[in-house]
Amino acid sequence: VIAATTALAQFIVSARPQDVPAAMRHEARRALLNWLGCAIGGAHTPAVDLALDAMREFSGPPSATVINRGVRLDVPNTALVNGIGSSTLDFDDTHLRTVIHPTVPVASAALALAEQRSASGAELMHAFILGVEAECKVGNAISPEHYDAGWHVTSTCGVIGAAAACSRLLGLDARQTAFAIGMAASQASGLSDILGSMTRMVNMGHAARNGFLAAWYAARGFTSSDRALEAPRGFANAFTTHADWSRLVDHLGAPWELAANAYKPYPCGIVVHPVLDGCLQLRAAHGLRAETIDRVELLVNPLVIRIMGNPAPADGLRSKVSAEHCTAVALMTGAAGVEAFTDAMVHDPAVAALRARVVLQACTGVSADAATVVVVLQDGTRHETHVAHARGSTELPLSDRDLEDKFRALLRWGRSGADADALIATIWRLDELADVGVLARAG
Amino acid sequence: VIAATTALAQFIVSARPQDVPAAMRHEARRALLNWLGCAIGGAHTPAVDLALDAMREFSGPPSATVINRGVRLDVPNTALVNGIGSSTLDFDDTHLRTVIHPTVPVASAALALAEQRSASGAELMHAFILGVEAECKVGNAISPEHYDAGWHVTSTCGVIGAAAACSRLLGLDARQTAFAIGMAASQASGLSDILGSMTRMVNMGHAARNGFLAAWYAARGFTSSDRALEAPRGFANAFTTHADWSRLVDHLGAPWELAANAYKPYPCGIVVHPVLDGCLQLRAAHGLRAETIDRVELLVNPLVIRIMGNPAPADGLRSKVSAEHCTAVALMTGAAGVEAFTDAMVHDPAVAALRARVVLQACTGVSADAATVVVVLQDGTRHETHVAHARGSTELPLSDRDLEDKFRALLRWGRSGADADALIATIWRLDELADVGVLARAG
Repeated sequence: VIAATTALAQFIVSARPQDVPAAMRHEARRALLNWLGCAIGGAHTPAVDLALDAMREFSGPPSATVINRGVRLDVPNTALVNGIGSSTLDFDDTHLRTVIHPTVPVASAALALAEQRSASGAELMHAFILGVEAECKVGNAISPEHYDAGWHVTSTCGVIGAAAACSRLLGLDARQTAFAIGMAASQASGLSDILGSMTRMVNMGHAARNGFLAAWYAARGFTSSDRALEAPRGFANAFTTHADWSRLVDHLGAPWELAANAYKPYPCGIVVHPVLDGCLQLRAAHGLRAETIDRVELLVNPLVIRIMGNPAPADGLRSKVSAEHCTAVALMTGAAGVEAFTDAMVHDPAVAALRARVVLQACTGVSADAATVVVVLQDGTRHETHVAHARGSTELPLSDRDLEDKFRALLRWGRSGADADALIATIWRLDELADVGVLARAG
Repeated sequence: VIAATTALAQFIVSARPQDVPAAMRHEARRALLNWLGCAIGGAHTPAVDLALDAMREFSGPPSATVINRGVRLDVPNTALVNGIGSSTLDFDDTHLRTVIHPTVPVASAALALAEQRSASGAELMHAFILGVEAECKVGNAISPEHYDAGWHVTSTCGVIGAAAACSRLLGLDARQTAFAIGMAASQASGLSDILGSMTRMVNMGHAARNGFLAAWYAARGFTSSDRALEAPRGFANAFTTHADWSRLVDHLGAPWELAANAYKPYPCGIVVHPVLDGCLQLRAAHGLRAETIDRVELLVNPLVIRIMGNPAPADGLRSKVSAEHCTAVALMTGAAGVEAFTDAMVHDPAVAALRARVVLQACTGVSADAATVVVVLQDGTRHETHVAHARGSTELPLSDRDLEDKFRALLRWGRSGADADALIATIWRLDELADVGVLARAG
């Protein structure tokens, strides 16, 4: 049996900032810029309101900040609420190989702890990089069987990533870090069945909070197992039918998993993104107006129908996993940002009418980041386009400028009073930041 | 697919106290007496010291009591620490069919919430009975495959039981209760690999805290799934290779699972209990003295060797899963109570010497609650006894008097200043208690 737990712990303890290539350090800044925008933009949503309402009376003395809410809580509760807030818009990043949303659990935990400790930008960044590496390498080792069994992989692997990042920030030694991983593995949880409800965000928050607590427990002297990942009655055996720990131990930092991170241009299910690219292209190219459209035909990968075939979503939350809604609102408004997925937009009669005229056709020959969109007008005119790679895919990553624009839009959506340009500049120079508290208190 | 989640929720909401037979209500009192003794007795252990040290700064305003510690915390942290404290001696009860330790997660959560709400003894007892019923019926539906896959079943099912009890105490409706079950199922966690470390107790505490939080979240308006147990990407599919929800929906309260609850006479692994009965019988019958013993031969069920074959335990914690240590200390001291499993006892040279002369022999023909013990003296004399059913087994349950004696011994071990007789009397009349706070503040 491969000693994955101790190998991972040793890596977390010994990896030096100078071992991380400049490109990866830049990718970490991009991930944190994207995440902070999501957290600021999602701060005034029902999920965050409910979380604050539920947890405020269960927080110890405040030492960290709920982003863009002007509320301070203790570290574990801040990690929890920021995990909920930064995932609620479903606009955070994606590690495409595992479908893990890597930054939410790791950054929510790490920033709360880093703020409490007045850590520097360089310390936060390094802990974050290591946390994402732990999270995604564990995910690689157990994918795809783990996800296929019904696990909410961001939650189950995220708790380990959060524990790794917090272990590093707390300066734990290799034995303590192994115990932290063990205590995180023994808290790993989250079912896919609840993804259509608020429990999705709560799972993300729990991963952040529980990962911090795992490291905290280990720091205070709790014992665990130092082979929790690979033991016969450990993580892999319980959570998947097939694990290959060589994918972890042979590849720590080689390559770094942040290199495979993707950012969403649209805050909805990723499989429909090529469709949205096509809709927006056709609308712009031909000046399409919704009232002249007879129907929309989509030739898509079968995943789109399985995951997002839903012509009549009940509310804004569920409209994010409705390919029909995404299509209709993009053609109607010429955009598919956060404002496309409100309850009001879902119940708009014109949007509902267009939604009903979207026809999905599955084709196994269409890859997951491609689609063909055909808009048929009432006068019989057909406009067609084929999208070979969606924006935000590995082949067509969002540029730094794209991410800056997204950040600014999210600050507007979150009614933030922060200076977007100043924050962007701070994150691009994160290594030089003396105290990361300024990020936590942004918004 | 059987609608297990809504059936369970409906049962929790609608079951009336008068639907519970008097014998079951008495069994609930026995379970709570046993649990409170364990909590008081375990309050001054390293695990509780560490938990208080780790969590005190993360507690909101105090509204509940850490048993026998004179410390007050908020409800979730009290549930957590009392879950750790009442499980740390490994002296709590066992639902033999599933190997769930039913009372720790449910009572730790329910009493913390009941104290905060100044609930009556009758309210606490009914919520507790329903919580144990939910926990063990879910366990029945997924056993034994679930445990065999490496899950710490008390933790994974305990969180659901704790959520059920707290849902009832909070007066949730059926929809909210289904959501609470869903949020508990999506927090269910705990690996068997860590059972030899302090993470065992932490898992129990997390089950209590997270079960409370699941009910609390649902009460505050968080949404979840109302089919989280049985959905294709839900609890059963993720946590077991075989589930039979008819074992739940067809048998809620018929029979009550508390009827199958067992109490330990010895605070160590249950499979060695018949051996301890035999050792104590032989010692008393023949006035055995350790220094005259040449060797001890044990004919046992193969489980004993698989789970507890360990001739050289490293410390007190691990001596609880060492059949050799249990045997040696029982023959040496004539008892196998909490004092038998201290670090000092493990490192006593005389105990170590006798441990080394214990020979285990597996026999598939010996049932799990039976054993044959042979003590061979240095002069060649052989003393032999066969135990057909261990004390505390289904066939030979501990009497109320046994439980009272155990309770008194635990209060002494926990250096409690409480009046044991008065507390015992309070619990036997729990239905009449106006405010359960007196139980929480005992110790």
